[in-house]
Amino acid sequence: MTAMASPSAGPRAPTDSNTADRPAVDGRRLLRRLEELAAVGPITGADGSRGSARLALTDADRDGRDLVVTWMRDLALSVSIDAIGNVIATRPARDGSLTSPVMTGSHIDTVRTGGRFDGNLGVLAGIEVIETLIERGIETTRPFAVAFFTNEEGARFSPDMLGSLVYAGGMTIEEAYDIVGIDGARVGDELARIGYLGAQPCPGPVPHAFVELHIEQGPVLELEGFRIGAVTGVQGISWTELTITGQSNHAGTTPMRFRHDAGYVAARIATFVRELATEIGHPHVGTVGKIDLHPNLVNVVAATAVMTVDLRNTDEAVLQESERRLHAFLDELSAAEGVTISKRTLARFEPVIFDDRVIDLVEKTASDLGNTVMRLPSGAGHDAQMMARLCPTAMIFTQSHLGISHNPAEHTDDADLVMGADVLLRVMLELSEGTVI
Amino acid sequence: MTAMASPSAGPRAPTDSNTADRPAVDGRRLLRRLEELAAVGPITGADGSRGSARLALTDADRDGRDLVVTWMRDLALSVSIDAIGNVIATRPARDGSLTSPVMTGSHIDTVRTGGRFDGNLGVLAGIEVIETLIERGIETTRPFAVAFFTNEEGARFSPDMLGSLVYAGGMTIEEAYDIVGIDGARVGDELARIGYLGAQPCPGPVPHAFVELHIEQGPVLELEGFRIGAVTGVQGISWTELTITGQSNHAGTTPMRFRHDAGYVAARIATFVRELATEIGHPHVGTVGKIDLHPNLVNVVAATAVMTVDLRNTDEAVLQESERRLHAFLDELSAAEGVTISKRTLARFEPVIFDDRVIDLVEKTASDLGNTVMRLPSGAGHDAQMMARLCPTAMIFTQSHLGISHNPAEHTDDADLVMGADVLLRVMLELSEGTVI
Repeated sequence: MTAMASPSAGPRAPTDSNTADRPAVDGRRLLRRLEELAAVGPITGADGSRGSARLALTDADRDGRDLVVTWMRDLALSVSIDAIGNVIATRPARDGSLTSPVMTGSHIDTVRTGGRFDGNLGVLAGIEVIETLIERGIETTRPFAVAFFTNEEGARFSPDMLGSLVYAGGMTIEEAYDIVGIDGARVGDELARIGYLGAQPCPGPVPHAFVELHIEQGPVLELEGFRIGAVTGVQGISWTELTITGQSNHAGTTPMRFRHDAGYVAARIATFVRELATEIGHPHVGTVGKIDLHPNLVNVVAATAVMTVDLRNTDEAVLQESERRLHAFLDELSAAEGVTISKRTLARFEPVIFDDRVIDLVEKTASDLGNTVMRLPSGAGHDAQMMARLCPTAMIFTQSHLGISHNPAEHTDDADLVMGADVLLRVMLELSEGTVI
Repeated sequence: MTAMASPSAGPRAPTDSNTADRPAVDGRRLLRRLEELAAVGPITGADGSRGSARLALTDADRDGRDLVVTWMRDLALSVSIDAIGNVIATRPARDGSLTSPVMTGSHIDTVRTGGRFDGNLGVLAGIEVIETLIERGIETTRPFAVAFFTNEEGARFSPDMLGSLVYAGGMTIEEAYDIVGIDGARVGDELARIGYLGAQPCPGPVPHAFVELHIEQGPVLELEGFRIGAVTGVQGISWTELTITGQSNHAGTTPMRFRHDAGYVAARIATFVRELATEIGHPHVGTVGKIDLHPNLVNVVAATAVMTVDLRNTDEAVLQESERRLHAFLDELSAAEGVTISKRTLARFEPVIFDDRVIDLVEKTASDLGNTVMRLPSGAGHDAQMMARLCPTAMIFTQSHLGISHNPAEHTDDADLVMGADVLLRVMLELSEGTVI
């Protein structure tokens, strides 16, 4: 196993060192499936890198689902499709039971400019884990399940993580069906159209535990020099849209003191968001990613600006404090500049804290496999945060090169992808034994 | 005349108080012509206000030109069209001479969302001045000329003030003909197409003096409580487009210290432009009117930003100093944030200083007519700044309500429009006598 701890090690086929109590996945098979799935809805990035576009519940998503379901059925797993289109494949326990499984999973829908690993890794590693067990004849105390959840990305339908949200009982199925996407399509209609409106009711059955493998989608592991992340939870998210209304005026003829410049106010808010993040300190992040000025001309003081503020923190109290300080600043600034600022909440999620026992297990298992391991919160949302409402949950992160994601240039070394699957396999086996939980 | 000094006075018809040495224009006629011209290419603003859209050398511009030329010809003026489409109507001097006239004029092209007065007032007031002289039988020592210049706005063809620039010899006619507009049309072709490619050569004949009446297009006169502006010159203009290239990243997963956020850098530049303007002080103005982020999404650190910086000052040395300080700041900021910033000059004009004798004459004349008068520079560019290359020049400003311009809501009180024409009439008569220049 020592060779696997080195990032320079390549993917690995089964070797004689595989034994029933120290199994390892078939890395080549996992990588081949990642390539095959990426070829469904293929796109090419500016640098020639290959990615995928499989927006939720489109034809491309259906093709991706069909491929993954084929793989599940080839393993003779029990495949169920639920009312929101989540697909769960289960291998029975030693005693033939299918209930209260050790569950893993993620998503296979992508953003319009998706990479090859975001979501896909977690689903295909789950299949690989189960195939490894079957191949080695390893039976388990609890059932093993692997799921892919509907519309995790939120790129077509809002909210994101819809499938796992509905699975966990956070939204009724009726409400979910009526969601209308960016193209005017309705979730219920699209599920039926692509043949994934299943019979299993939501909320779904409660697993014994849930562990999701995912690429980090951020640069921290790589930059800090850790190979595996033991994810402690998911940051709380506060998204606010601000509409600033000032006064359009000629940029040459309006003295500075007479201006009500919506563009300046937007810029000042963006610099305040940075100042606030610096002051609060890590792991707080604040981002102004979107600014639209009107009329957006070189020589016209902007009449209006629409912008977004994205604040995230792992601590709900600190997140609330950052919101309070932002709002106080907006009040001061609007009074000083003679503009109005209206606020609209686009999203608000409290931080999610994963189960300490599962986090510790991930950390220990990855470390035992020779990896450097960092405990860190997830900055992005994941299906695991919904499943955490139901059962003890944590996540495993692999490095993402440069933190690039939602981009065909998304990259994780082959050896890291395979190591992530090996950690997942060991963690699931341990959870199955009931020694940790 | 006292009543006219009050902003509450309405438009005025000729009265008995009109004498050969104290003539006044026919206010109703001027206002009626403003309405008639505004009805060519009519548009309606969001608040129901009426404006015009007559982009240079379009069919609508041709229709406006034809109407104004009809009014010129109705007065039996000598109408000439030059090679760049400027139209000049001249009333001979007492001795029959047509050379070295006292000249006024402005433009009748508009932006896409033009008001009723920008440009039009100066042209129609010039016609009104001449009609008043004809009506009263007042002969003058020098000829009187009124012009409208091609493509002052620059909304279809760049640069703005094209007709007066070519008239003054600042660009060759060949170069001007080859300018291609936003719709792909060529100036030379469009002049011929609408029948305004004239025979008079450019550069044009040198006037004795030039005075342009224009609405302020800014709020200063209204806010400072002055009725008439004696314009001292035109601010220098520096327009720069900045392209900031950073690194696109996930807003949730990328710690602040690892970011290269083009959106933050754009915002920080915009706040610096404000700080710089505050520090330099009036009359310096600095505006960031245009910011385009990419990909412009709530949860993505912007990869690139394209923005404009508009700096203006009446003092070339101060304008250059502000450019130097901006560039030094850009160097610091790009190094600190790990982004690249490329610069492209969109426009650069040195300040123009008008003729003190003509400025003094405008100030005294307006004051003699009972007005409060403010000496101020123009923040916007005007044809007068090109004519200032040829002869003693100044401008007369009337108030613009709230400084709103390039908008159908552009408004100047009727009494102010008429007073502006009266000041123009008196100033031109004085210039004709040769006592000032």
